Amino acid sequence: MASRLLNRRDVEFMLYDWLDAERLAGRPRFADHSRETFTAALDTAEQIASELFAPHNKLSDQQEPHFDGARVSVIPEVKRALDAFSAAGLMAAGHDYALGGMQLPLTVEKAVTAYFTAANMATSSYAFLTIGNANTLLKCASTAQVEHFVRPMLEGRWFGTMCLSEPQAGSSLSDISTRAAPDPDVPGQYRVCGNKMWISGGEHELAENIVHLVLAKIPGADGKLVAGVKGISLFIVPKFLDNGERNDIALAGLNHKMGNRGTTNCLLNFGEGRHLPGGRSGAVGYLVGRAGQGLLNMFHMMNEARIGVGLAAAVLGYTGYLHALEYARERPQGRHPAAKDPSSPQLPIIAHTDVRRMLLAQKAYVEGALGLCLYSARLVDDEHTGETPEVRQRAGRLLEFLTPITKSWPSQWGLEANNLAIQVHGGYGYTREYNVEQFYRDNRLNQIHEGTHGIHGLDLLGRKASIHDGALLKTMAEEIRATVQAARNTGRGADARQLDAHASALDAAWCRVEQVTQALYAASDLNQTLANATVYLEAVGHVVVAWIWLQQAMAAVAKLPEEDSFRRGKLQACRYFYQWELPKVQPQLDLLAALDTTTLDMQDAWF
Amino acid sequence: MASRLLNRRDVEFMLYDWLDAERLAGRPRFADHSRETFTAALDTAEQIASELFAPHNKLSDQQEPHFDGARVSVIPEVKRALDAFSAAGLMAAGHDYALGGMQLPLTVEKAVTAYFTAANMATSSYAFLTIGNANTLLKCASTAQVEHFVRPMLEGRWFGTMCLSEPQAGSSLSDISTRAAPDPDVPGQYRVCGNKMWISGGEHELAENIVHLVLAKIPGADGKLVAGVKGISLFIVPKFLDNGERNDIALAGLNHKMGNRGTTNCLLNFGEGRHLPGGRSGAVGYLVGRAGQGLLNMFHMMNEARIGVGLAAAVLGYTGYLHALEYARERPQGRHPAAKDPSSPQLPIIAHTDVRRMLLAQKAYVEGALGLCLYSARLVDDEHTGETPEVRQRAGRLLEFLTPITKSWPSQWGLEANNLAIQVHGGYGYTREYNVEQFYRDNRLNQIHEGTHGIHGLDLLGRKASIHDGALLKTMAEEIRATVQAARNTGRGADARQLDAHASALDAAWCRVEQVTQALYAASDLNQTLANATVYLEAVGHVVVAWIWLQQAMAAVAKLPEEDSFRRGKLQACRYFYQWELPKVQPQLDLLAALDTTTLDMQDAWF
Repeated sequence: MASRLLNRRDVEFMLYDWLDAERLAGRPRFADHSRETFTAALDTAEQIASELFAPHNKLSDQQEPHFDGARVSVIPEVKRALDAFSAAGLMAAGHDYALGGMQLPLTVEKAVTAYFTAANMATSSYAFLTIGNANTLLKCASTAQVEHFVRPMLEGRWFGTMCLSEPQAGSSLSDISTRAAPDPDVPGQYRVCGNKMWISGGEHELAENIVHLVLAKIPGADGKLVAGVKGISLFIVPKFLDNGERNDIALAGLNHKMGNRGTTNCLLNFGEGRHLPGGRSGAVGYLVGRAGQGLLNMFHMMNEARIGVGLAAAVLGYTGYLHALEYARERPQGRHPAAKDPSSPQLPIIAHTDVRRMLLAQKAYVEGALGLCLYSARLVDDEHTGETPEVRQRAGRLLEFLTPITKSWPSQWGLEANNLAIQVHGGYGYTREYNVEQFYRDNRLNQIHEGTHGIHGLDLLGRKASIHDGALLKTMAEEIRATVQAARNTGRGADARQLDAHASALDAAWCRVEQVTQALYAASDLNQTLANATVYLEAVGHVVVAWIWLQQAMAAVAKLPEEDSFRRGKLQACRYFYQWELPKVQPQLDLLAALDTTTLDMQDAWF
Repeated sequence: MASRLLNRRDVEFMLYDWLDAERLAGRPRFADHSRETFTAALDTAEQIASELFAPHNKLSDQQEPHFDGARVSVIPEVKRALDAFSAAGLMAAGHDYALGGMQLPLTVEKAVTAYFTAANMATSSYAFLTIGNANTLLKCASTAQVEHFVRPMLEGRWFGTMCLSEPQAGSSLSDISTRAAPDPDVPGQYRVCGNKMWISGGEHELAENIVHLVLAKIPGADGKLVAGVKGISLFIVPKFLDNGERNDIALAGLNHKMGNRGTTNCLLNFGEGRHLPGGRSGAVGYLVGRAGQGLLNMFHMMNEARIGVGLAAAVLGYTGYLHALEYARERPQGRHPAAKDPSSPQLPIIAHTDVRRMLLAQKAYVEGALGLCLYSARLVDDEHTGETPEVRQRAGRLLEFLTPITKSWPSQWGLEANNLAIQVHGGYGYTREYNVEQFYRDNRLNQIHEGTHGIHGLDLLGRKASIHDGALLKTMAEEIRATVQAARNTGRGADARQLDAHASALDAAWCRVEQVTQALYAASDLNQTLANATVYLEAVGHVVVAWIWLQQAMAAVAKLPEEDSFRRGKLQACRYFYQWELPKVQPQLDLLAALDTTTLDMQDAWF
């Protein structure tokens, strides 16, 4: 039986036939790599994910982590899986040799990641949070801090978290009130007090220690906290101190989620006096980077985490699609509308056009979403290791523009793919005896964490579309027009005609996006410009994924003239996207162009 | 605190200001009724639903029914709630006085129902399945069968089920293989053998007996079953026989669902020999109506059940909306984009345009959906008790046309409302500590049962749009045009201008539906006509709900000139629907008009 995690042929198509990952091996950082080492990493990932992550995905949903008031218990399969992940060196897959890493390009690392998330989003989260934490520290911590905290994380002995939100400050980080005051006993050390909410992996016994990265404010001379984001600093607050003492961090409770249940999600109280390290209450913390730069430093992690969220949403959609496809091929039910002889055998449901519609939609969503995420990862590689400063700057700008879309589009449409996977299964899909309902529950998280859907609308329209005098939007436009041009010179016969038609549709849609962006910024009132930012996010996201699809279709036509079924599958999914999905942006762009104020005008009292 | 089940003012607006339910009291069947008796019924419903159904909604999700191999245990709160429902006479709310009923119009009965489903879909299902069962028997059973089986159901002592699907025949009822052979010992009695899947309320100890209505085939003289639907007959198969013997029905297992967990959902084996009534295996069954008419008889129930499913989906969306509204008013978070002074107090999130967008969308979906369901119920009343044969025929035709939409549209958009209710709550909404995630899980069922979404697309386009030479579609068109005309003569000033603009948009959209329907039927191949039937269902559904909204807006303008906030809320939600939702049908109708074959052309091998 083929893997139901991901279609390996498709992953390799994206890496090699489309994104040309082999060319990355020509860069100094990746000089030891080749298609063979990439393939070996994918083999390892697929094997460990299949054998150790997927088998307990349902079990850890059914037997979610439990807090008895003193300890959190997690089923033992989780630790076994994560230990194997670390033992294979995957915690440091992308890191420097000097840190024990493999120096894999991020493009390949994300494809490796994809297998684990598809197999078990909850268990793999512990690893990916740790990697994100380590990467943040690598950007802004001192050498001593890297040696002390990062190294054990990359070895998989310690795990990491990100502590941003607070009960009174979810999306609004400027309102956090956790305070970090200088420790009167130990110069240079801080004592952290406050409550942090929604901390994934905030407590467990899967690792020897937990390295919390905590946003907190250092009080001024008057003892008051500075309002706004300027007062925010970043601290390392470990669960255990060097002398083995328990730090003053108390688990106040676990949140019980609809899905993604296997990841503990915690309310943590820092400095409430539950433990008394050094004989005094207050969680011992170490400042990372400069005071007041906490949010900036954390954003290094957040951009990476956002690609990670998009990727998770994409591959949960992807595995659901493969489950639905297998079911649709095996389940006999009904007959064609025009051939209803009831004594004829029933057809496999994939023979019904409406079922094919649901499968094709899933294919278009999940291969489009995975493509978007791997494309973004490729941009990260280019930003860091591109051959010229121009390549690096260009990649950085594109990445900045695409990040809110890479996070949000898969979160919306990967979930819709899971919704359709349930529908293909009929009643069976609604039961916990099958897998797809869990994917749907797990995936619902992704529109909420790492910035809600609406926050990314504000990021895209309110920031990315306008900063640097619109330079990001301009770079995006150049890339899209280059693809349009290239598509018009690719393939022959029917393939060429199809690509040409899509190129024209994409060109027209993007022109409209540019006009609409101008119209929005022509409004005199910022509240009006931003009122429908979520619609902007969704419309631009659809146009961007149309562009991703055109690139995939071109690669299939150019590189795989002989691989008929695979090429035609890509072309048909691309056709689906252009016929069924891209036209949806027209009413969205009309609404934006009209500066519609329906929601802005709505009054509380009228609800 | 206002009820979070439904907005009572809105329910009364729909019944009295819009649908003119008081006028029903002028008809002989409802002569004892008046606004006072309707209001008393609503009061009773709201009270029992609030006090006995809502409080255990979460508990019965957490402690779902359990089968130990011998008995099914259900938390005791379920029986207490259902007993109170029966004691209030609500099992027979719409039934004849002669049967102990109240003879409430269905319009009002459905508003009563709405409270119970909003409070607890799972528990109330037991009651509504029983009522549906009773109504089926009242249509086609003998007087003796009615006395024997219906009366105890309407008293709430016995409960009922519908047994249609089988493991090998879900949506394709022509393929059922349950057989009912004449009992060799008792003339006129049958022995039923076969497996029935997805039987809601199929086993429990909430009632003294369970009356299963079972579709089965009577073997021909050659012992074979007739292929297709013509061979299907309807049988009563009770759990206990008159002499107290247990019938030969065995619970093979419970399905464990994502949501709606409180309703047992069973695989039942009839006639496997677990019990031996009269000393012999085979479940004792009684033929209802004529042999071979089973599906026709069951369809009486199914049309009613479909309005019920739509209503459930609508009110789960509705209660979720009220939860989100309350949360958005109470939760402070963030500031306006143009006023970001971080030392200013945080705003309640309802002040954010994107949150208002999500609330307004929910309002538009759930009040549109509830309106559609109550309008359909009003059509049932008119079909049965309308003043003239013309009124009755006209109502019957509209109802036939609308039924697939009344089932499907709320199932799709009520779920989307629940999705948005989670989003408004942010991370809290994703936890089981809050209520909205359960509504979302519960509501996902409604696109699957009582005919999947796709089946209703085939029903609407393949049957309803064409039968009787298109008479149903023509009647629908006349109603819509009458509303358009009336809207152009309603209100003054800004209200009048708004209604006029909506009327023009509705008129144009409906014209397009007519053209597209013709284009679809002009295709020479039925498979091509029906290929995109689901898109047709969704597009026509949106146009129909735009029509429902225009009616509500007109009623608000005409009847409530002084009730400013309520009227403006209706007008703004209507504006939302016309500005944000109705335009979505354009690309759908374009796709249909082009007879797009993307999904039809897709080949299995290309996936």
